[in-house]
Amino acid sequence: MTVPAAQVFRVPMRHPGDVSGIEALFEAGAAIPAQVVAILAKTEGNGCVNDFTRAYAVQSLEMMLHRHGVTADVALVMSGGTEGGLSPHWIVFAVGEAAAPAPGGALAIASAFTRDFLPEELGRMPQIRETAAAVRAAIAQAGITRAHYVQVKCPLLTNERMADAAARGQSVATTDTYASMGLSRGASALGVALALGEVDEAALSDAVVGEDWSLFSGVASASAGVELTRNEVVVMGMAPGWGGDLAIAHDVMADGIDFPAVQRALAAAGLGAPGQLSEAQQAQAVAVLAKAEPSTTGRIRGARHIMNDDSDINATRHARALVGGVIAAAVGRTELFVSGGAEHQGPDGGGPVAVIVRR
Amino acid sequence: MTVPAAQVFRVPMRHPGDVSGIEALFEAGAAIPAQVVAILAKTEGNGCVNDFTRAYAVQSLEMMLHRHGVTADVALVMSGGTEGGLSPHWIVFAVGEAAAPAPGGALAIASAFTRDFLPEELGRMPQIRETAAAVRAAIAQAGITRAHYVQVKCPLLTNERMADAAARGQSVATTDTYASMGLSRGASALGVALALGEVDEAALSDAVVGEDWSLFSGVASASAGVELTRNEVVVMGMAPGWGGDLAIAHDVMADGIDFPAVQRALAAAGLGAPGQLSEAQQAQAVAVLAKAEPSTTGRIRGARHIMNDDSDINATRHARALVGGVIAAAVGRTELFVSGGAEHQGPDGGGPVAVIVRR
Amino acid sequence: MTVPAAQVFRVPMRHPGDVSGIEALFEAGAAIPAQVVAILAKTEGNGCVNDFTRAYAVQSLEMMLHRHGVTADVALVMSGGTEGGLSPHWIVFAVGEAAAPAPGGALAIASAFTRDFLPEELGRMPQIRETAAAVRAAIAQAGITRAHYVQVKCPLLTNERMADAAARGQSVATTDTYASMGLSRGASALGVALALGEVDEAALSDAVVGEDWSLFSGVASASAGVELTRNEVVVMGMAPGWGGDLAIAHDVMADGIDFPAVQRALAAAGLGAPGQLSEAQQAQAVAVLAKAEPSTTGRIRGARHIMNDDSDINATRHARALVGGVIAAAVGRTELFVSGGAEHQGPDGGGPVAVIVRR
Amino acid sequence: MTVPAAQVFRVPMRHPGDVSGIEALFEAGAAIPAQVVAILAKTEGNGCVNDFTRAYAVQSLEMMLHRHGVTADVALVMSGGTEGGLSPHWIVFAVGEAAAPAPGGALAIASAFTRDFLPEELGRMPQIRETAAAVRAAIAQAGITRAHYVQVKCPLLTNERMADAAARGQSVATTDTYASMGLSRGASALGVALALGEVDEAALSDAVVGEDWSLFSGVASASAGVELTRNEVVVMGMAPGWGGDLAIAHDVMADGIDFPAVQRALAAAGLGAPGQLSEAQQAQAVAVLAKAEPSTTGRIRGARHIMNDDSDINATRHARALVGGVIAAAVGRTELFVSGGAEHQGPDGGGPVAVIVRR
Repeated sequence: MTVPAAQVFRVPMRHPGDVSGIEALFEAGAAIPAQVVAILAKTEGNGCVNDFTRAYAVQSLEMMLHRHGVTADVALVMSGGTEGGLSPHWIVFAVGEAAAPAPGGALAIASAFTRDFLPEELGRMPQIRETAAAVRAAIAQAGITRAHYVQVKCPLLTNERMADAAARGQSVATTDTYASMGLSRGASALGVALALGEVDEAALSDAVVGEDWSLFSGVASASAGVELTRNEVVVMGMAPGWGGDLAIAHDVMADGIDFPAVQRALAAAGLGAPGQLSEAQQAQAVAVLAKAEPSTTGRIRGARHIMNDDSDINATRHARALVGGVIAAAVGRTELFVSGGAEHQGPDGGGPVAVIVRR
Repeated sequence: MTVPAAQVFRVPMRHPGDVSGIEALFEAGAAIPAQVVAILAKTEGNGCVNDFTRAYAVQSLEMMLHRHGVTADVALVMSGGTEGGLSPHWIVFAVGEAAAPAPGGALAIASAFTRDFLPEELGRMPQIRETAAAVRAAIAQAGITRAHYVQVKCPLLTNERMADAAARGQSVATTDTYASMGLSRGASALGVALALGEVDEAALSDAVVGEDWSLFSGVASASAGVELTRNEVVVMGMAPGWGGDLAIAHDVMADGIDFPAVQRALAAAGLGAPGQLSEAQQAQAVAVLAKAEPSTTGRIRGARHIMNDDSDINATRHARALVGGVIAAAVGRTELFVSGGAEHQGPDGGGPVAVIVRR
Repeated sequence: MTVPAAQVFRVPMRHPGDVSGIEALFEAGAAIPAQVVAILAKTEGNGCVNDFTRAYAVQSLEMMLHRHGVTADVALVMSGGTEGGLSPHWIVFAVGEAAAPAPGGALAIASAFTRDFLPEELGRMPQIRETAAAVRAAIAQAGITRAHYVQVKCPLLTNERMADAAARGQSVATTDTYASMGLSRGASALGVALALGEVDEAALSDAVVGEDWSLFSGVASASAGVELTRNEVVVMGMAPGWGGDLAIAHDVMADGIDFPAVQRALAAAGLGAPGQLSEAQQAQAVAVLAKAEPSTTGRIRGARHIMNDDSDINATRHARALVGGVIAAAVGRTELFVSGGAEHQGPDGGGPVAVIVRR
Repeated sequence: MTVPAAQVFRVPMRHPGDVSGIEALFEAGAAIPAQVVAILAKTEGNGCVNDFTRAYAVQSLEMMLHRHGVTADVALVMSGGTEGGLSPHWIVFAVGEAAAPAPGGALAIASAFTRDFLPEELGRMPQIRETAAAVRAAIAQAGITRAHYVQVKCPLLTNERMADAAARGQSVATTDTYASMGLSRGASALGVALALGEVDEAALSDAVVGEDWSLFSGVASASAGVELTRNEVVVMGMAPGWGGDLAIAHDVMADGIDFPAVQRALAAAGLGAPGQLSEAQQAQAVAVLAKAEPSTTGRIRGARHIMNDDSDINATRHARALVGGVIAAAVGRTELFVSGGAEHQGPDGGGPVAVIVRR
């Protein structure tokens, strides 16, 4: 009798269509195609509206997985933007088997889906509640006792969907497509917060989404994609029944230069260090996942930043570059999954940071 | 009888023309206009060819200094580019008086100039040798026993200057105006290295400028400006004969994420810390000055960066954002003078970092 | 006895602080400093939030005018953004004297101001009505019988002004500073339309500003500036009582590639041509002033444009480059005053184009 | 007995992976997959180093062609950059059959390839001569009597190829990968010029490539791609033996605003017009193909442009936006194949413009 065991592979890419590193893992037998459950990536686009590196990477992954006989759904989460020193890379998540549970439990991964949303539900309470239900279902399924990172992919409002709602006499949360991405991410994050008890249901309403930044999840990471009509949820956490040598921990950066929070997350994962990780510790730090956002106040600890006023470089690009530098200072590496668009994912100007380690 | 004493003021700006913070210092009597010797600034332009925030800031400073009766030469060094979280700010350097030297010496500041250069001398040995002589002169003048930061402003080749050289039958180091900025900065930095014994004169030649990155200064910070025909040098270091409560130290970042080097520089200045500075230490850290550059290898510790391949954001902008994040991680603040264009200023992909502290 | 006569000088600039071309006009006696009433310019910034080339140009102009003894108010309208082939340049407007009116009248220029606005009036009917009154006053003052170009500078909502309104229990049109620029420009343009009978007062309300793009002026060109608390209006048109050899005409581009409208405007000014102007005609075309905007539909004559989806280059930058190319095709020159931000200034995706000619 | 007949389809795309419009042509029977010989496209990337929209479009095309059973080589030429108003679109070239030659001949299309190049041959005479031979071969094969547009895809120097040359003791034309793209395009264009008698062989040498801009082809359009080791040539011209209703003509823009040259090209193709094409003429103008480049002088007809000094927007992006506007002014449409990187393809700052019409 065996137990599930998570595997995580960090793989460099030479360009957004370069899946050769993942194929090499398959060919070497290090990873089994059929066991892959999710692939995250940082690709080198602008991470904004016209970032086609994400779709190109997805197309390349799908062709590659098809070549390797993978027919099951694999969650593909592409995050554009490798500003500053961030290095484009894939993170492959697989679930294999171990002979016995690890003492104290191990990293567990589980997915779940909501039902399809009506356009008028996006960015509002129905999306929050359904996301919370999906998170609870994934947690229950994997026996997770502590969730440390919850990746959500969520829909957005297109002109077609807004027209559909209007035809049925329904209002939508916003008529601005770009704004709907933020509202959908925000409602998804609040759904995570609701499921994990980070926020009281009584504090939630349609009105707080995108408005009350004091409400947030410290483990949610949400991205919106036009191809979706429902939320996809991938929960990572510690589960007593899982085997393998991986563990996960997290903390929350209070602002973009909250280096102590990064150090706390590393220490919680067993990688305590006075300053940058040692080389041995760096090898143990399999993956680091974080969210970055410019503060809406235009300030970091009282000093003005120019992210929100720069019409040449999008604010989220500045934020990723900054947070990438701060986390690289701690970890000693630039292959870091730092993603933008952190509505209700950590406090204003801050965000969650999760660490997956090999023990 | 008195001794000289350096003063350093870090002043926020709301925009590149906002000198009101400096004027407030004058009006409060905290700083004396006639004692100002240099003003450095980070302004929020792109730091590249068409960055007019620097000229706008200089024009605003000159008008303001004129209003306050300053007639002496004040070195004005504007560095464009506050990417990531970097905060636009002024750093005002003044030289006042103290009753007696500080025990162990104190921060000293001294300026010197080379003779005017012929176009054919730029980026070549004559610029290197004359810069070295100016650095030595400044050091001697102030009695500096250890130089920790040498700011150089240097000329570049314009079409007119190239035509002048051609008319006299002389070749120039490059016929590309933009490239001449790098060569002039590089030769200037090698001049600093020569003066301080960081590089042997025998190792220097016209051919190594812009080519042999193993030759560099660990304290030089050079910027090229079209308005100059000679090099201006400002040396900061420790001098036994100076008073006041300021000190300076430095170290050299080996790459863009060399957090330990930043910690060493802080510790050398008396601000040792396991991780980020405490609030009390932050208050002591009056100014931090550093250079940032993308590595020419396209790698940071083996991981690919995209700085040199990004046709939307200039490579130096990525580099400043990254290094700004790494230093902010250590210092706990984003008002940091991180400047790009680091040819022969620190190793390839790295750069000097200097810290001025109040003891 | 004399009559007023307008003069217009188009002057190249080497950078946003280069006012030497204007000074050369003064020194040659071609222009008289005390007769200058307005200076417009295209500067090479991004034309968006962090475009400091405008403030730098204004500061340079003010210093220069002060050096030449000008004490009267001169309207300074800096428009950032010389994308595509547009060439940075100044346009100096002066009012001198002529012995007699020109047959059929001549170009006339007149300025007027509204009262100061309360924050809650911006982007709403009070701004519309007061702007209309100022336009009418300027027209009456100069005896203009046909207005062809109305430049308006208008305030925007800052955080301080919004707080002031809130403290008095008043709502504002928007709480987004950037959005307030568009609403203020839009209300100003509708004020021009109201004054000139282009739009019925009955069709106007707070609600149409920034919403009903079918309402617009075909001659308004508005820009918002943080330094203003009232609207400044400069009307250019034909007046029977004015002398000199200049005339003005205009037409309205229906979309960004409405070359026939440009040809019509030129022909109305006496410069009819099958294709590009001849060299002799080009010399007569003293100034061309136009507005450019991306269509909100994302289409130009049915074909998709990417202006609104480009997160690397602001949409208004694309629009200026396009319209600059279309007008240069007709005029045969790239010194064209093509300005962005055309809310209610021409139809959606189009805009006014005015031509000043020497007869 | 039949003769060959060219078909050209202009197809909009919603994003770089959207090949649905081409598939719709196949499904409707309007185009036959097996007859497709080339597909050109304008995609909405930056057209520079990190433009992955080209590779994404190619991958999408290859998957689609495979789905439709196409096994033959189809020349795929993706040109990134739809600045200003340019509209992303595909142009599909097919060769079918007609019952008889068209009177006066018709548009003919023919492809040819050079042998593989050694690294040391790129950007030099061997590449020029082999390209010329390939152009001559294609012309002979199709019986073309007048070539109006020659598309060339050519290799570039990678670090691996440079190392290979060095290992064999051979020098290369440049050690800068990016510069090698320009040299390879330039040598390819000079090869076209040599084949067509636009330039004398005696005037050619390694030294003129990338240096003597007075030597150029008025019909060449070259693009460099890392995947190639030889030149691929597609010649379009008029051939007496071809049938169908299409024809082609061209002219050469002397600078970026040479609207008369565009009008001449249209007139040569039978679409003479005083100003913009009529709607009926627009429908006849099946495809317009042009090259755009910033002038190296920094001037357009004496007026300064800022393309070469803009560190936020690449110079070629400005140039495409400008030329797109000028050509749209003439054609009345924004679906125009305006491509950058025009070394030796037209004069400095100008470029060829070709028009394919349905008669």
